[in-house]
Amino acid sequence: MEFKDKFAEYIEYTESNLKKYNALTESESAQKNLIDAMNYSLEAGGKRIRPVLVYAFTEAFGGDYRSAAAPASAIEMIHTFSLIHDDLPAMDNDDFRRGKPSCHKAFGEAMAILAGDALSVLPFEIISDDKTLSDAQKVKIISVLSKAVGRNGMIGGQVIDMENEQRDDVYEANLRNMYRHKTGELIAVSCVMGCICAGADENSIKIAADYGYKLGLAFQIIDDILDVTSTTEELGKPVGSDAEENKTTFVTLYGIEKAQGIADNITCEALDCLEKLGNNEFLKELTEMLLNRKN
Amino acid sequence: MEFKDKFAEYIEYTESNLKKYNALTESESAQKNLIDAMNYSLEAGGKRIRPVLVYAFTEAFGGDYRSAAAPASAIEMIHTFSLIHDDLPAMDNDDFRRGKPSCHKAFGEAMAILAGDALSVLPFEIISDDKTLSDAQKVKIISVLSKAVGRNGMIGGQVIDMENEQRDDVYEANLRNMYRHKTGELIAVSCVMGCICAGADENSIKIAADYGYKLGLAFQIIDDILDVTSTTEELGKPVGSDAEENKTTFVTLYGIEKAQGIADNITCEALDCLEKLGNNEFLKELTEMLLNRKN
Repeated sequence: MEFKDKFAEYIEYTESNLKKYNALTESESAQKNLIDAMNYSLEAGGKRIRPVLVYAFTEAFGGDYRSAAAPASAIEMIHTFSLIHDDLPAMDNDDFRRGKPSCHKAFGEAMAILAGDALSVLPFEIISDDKTLSDAQKVKIISVLSKAVGRNGMIGGQVIDMENEQRDDVYEANLRNMYRHKTGELIAVSCVMGCICAGADENSIKIAADYGYKLGLAFQIIDDILDVTSTTEELGKPVGSDAEENKTTFVTLYGIEKAQGIADNITCEALDCLEKLGNNEFLKELTEMLLNRKN
Repeated sequence: MEFKDKFAEYIEYTESNLKKYNALTESESAQKNLIDAMNYSLEAGGKRIRPVLVYAFTEAFGGDYRSAAAPASAIEMIHTFSLIHDDLPAMDNDDFRRGKPSCHKAFGEAMAILAGDALSVLPFEIISDDKTLSDAQKVKIISVLSKAVGRNGMIGGQVIDMENEQRDDVYEANLRNMYRHKTGELIAVSCVMGCICAGADENSIKIAADYGYKLGLAFQIIDDILDVTSTTEELGKPVGSDAEENKTTFVTLYGIEKAQGIADNITCEALDCLEKLGNNEFLKELTEMLLNRKN
């Protein structure tokens, strides 16, 4: 199957599962607004890179990607929960997300806090209730996922981001540490969960995680570059916001050209990881697509 | 062992486990403020009723209560996460909690949101990484816990509470539905998790859950009564806040005397559940203590 057809198939499966797992049930009529708020943000789109990685890694190790529906949906819910809370007035105070009013603008601040909260625990419900994975797989997946989200994962990364903003002396090491936590952990754990669904061995899981961290870092550096080289139209959000907020990025540290060189190098390292895993064609094309993206 | 000694033993084990599970590790120096904020709220005290119930039900079914350290700590973390987010300006806007500045007053609003978020996922990490429970027990515990917290559990209850506040026509059924979700679910799941740790049968688990829902409802009605009959000193928080906020409670619906009668009846029903489970002396005394409490 061609890359773009496979990609479309994964996306379609992702969308239909997100709908299914967060459908309103009869007993929850009193919580309709909450579930509407959760779905509003879940359906806001985005690249769905994380679930696609879960599916691609499941298939790369010989598994049926449909067996990974729960962890793939879970990681997108976690990502969405983080965006809802990130946009809150007390955090980044963003009124728009992907061209639509952000969750707290559409549903009010209290409901947005609760929608994010509910999306932070629903992942553990759908994984533990899954009908295809074994108990051992579920426990392993919940262990790696909760760590990737928590105080030493994505949430920790948001704290490091906040602390960096208070400082005048942010170096590459601080930036890398922040990106690794804030973006890298969820991307790496997506790859790892796919491996677990397919029953891959520990060494392969390690290489898959390594690939994920590298992909996440390259992804973030390219974000830094697009913030100065793209147009608001292409990017779907205001460009130049990093400079406006006086943020240290790979571009402010090294300039566009050198930042691009670093992103290229890290992407090559990510491709090397894939080679060690047997050179999966879909993952190779996905990696290159993410490097060459315009938004 | 006497009730108060057993109670003290459970509390001590709870406190030491909360410290252990949320200790700062070397690799997390950049997230020190986050972990301080989490511990600040975890250490703020409170009755620790939920972990005590986990331990008591584990022992009631012949298990070693120490084997329930992970779920007992988990439920207190979830409770703490809900208090941190409840106190936020966009929610109840409470500056104080148990006589101390609330988390967002002490650490800022952004850090309080993130501390709550981190406390919502850490429970799943410590349960999945536990060394004494089997994979089957962990999956079952995570399934019941995530449901008790989520959109049709405690978080759903907060939404029902918000929606009730917008209405002029709140009846007993609405109030019971809100209390069952907002308070009952976490209390019931505490009892259920204790049963699972001890390997209790499904029928006993059902009765234990029923006991928990009744205890939670009686607990909440007594809260309604104490809000008008207690003193600020005794209660540790301002009395009369329900009336001030124009909230419908069992007292506004029925008056103090009838509300007390309802609480007494529900407590009797809870004690009936215990009788069906073999009349555990500790749980009986705990139930009576909670009914007769002054704060």
